[in-house]
Amino acid sequence: MSFKLHQNFLSKIFLHNFPLCKVLLEDERHYPWLLLIPRRNHVSKLVDLSSEDQLQLNSELNLAQQILLEKFHPDQLNIAAIGNITPQLHIHVIARFKDDPAWPYTVWDHPIRASYSNAEREDMIQALREAFIGVTF
Amino acid sequence: MSFKLHQNFLSKIFLHNFPLCKVLLEDERHYPWLLLIPRRNHVSKLVDLSSEDQLQLNSELNLAQQILLEKFHPDQLNIAAIGNITPQLHIHVIARFKDDPAWPYTVWDHPIRASYSNAEREDMIQALREAFIGVTF
Repeated sequence: MSFKLHQNFLSKIFLHNFPLCKVLLEDERHYPWLLLIPRRNHVSKLVDLSSEDQLQLNSELNLAQQILLEKFHPDQLNIAAIGNITPQLHIHVIARFKDDPAWPYTVWDHPIRASYSNAEREDMIQALREAFIGVTF
Repeated sequence: MSFKLHQNFLSKIFLHNFPLCKVLLEDERHYPWLLLIPRRNHVSKLVDLSSEDQLQLNSELNLAQQILLEKFHPDQLNIAAIGNITPQLHIHVIARFKDDPAWPYTVWDHPIRASYSNAEREDMIQALREAFIGVTF
């Protein structure tokens, strides 16, 4: 069965297809915020993935983290599989800064939200797509 | 150099030592909440772990998830490496329920907090220690 993306992700910004995961960008200007979504149906928890997929996910998470570190020099990375609202397995990879509006708290339920401007969004998409295209396993 | 646990973890409840991670229990009665802490100094992000440690962590996370699933039958598991407040790498493994006080939001900054009663805490510790002792890789 072909992979079907949950409708809650349809508004996110497509960046890249890794061998396992679709990589999307959250339209949230305060934090460079990626979503890695394994292209597997009916999987809601990390432990539901096969061993092979877990290893591949680990590699793809490393690359996503390295890209955020190199591009944005964050103070910390927040990596999480939550899925209480959208049950299709997705892993947040978020660059955090000591001067971001939610620091040191978590971003998921933080009230301050703002989209990128059109120019900022285009710059982010271009920079990140180039970075993802350049990675090798 | 021998591993030194960050002082913020000293108040958590010790459950088990996996080959890589120390497993602690958060004293929070609303959610069965484990912390897996790789016994490595100067590591704050998942990507900082060696490849071997990442594979071992993946195995230990699978076992921790399976234990929470079998013992508590949660509706979802929340797995996260955050570390904004305590920079020593630690991975939260939390059983979430549709009738828990924070659902569907995240638990980290949720205002409702309550410790286990002494009897509840003893039961949790005993049940979880037995489950962790029984696991095999």
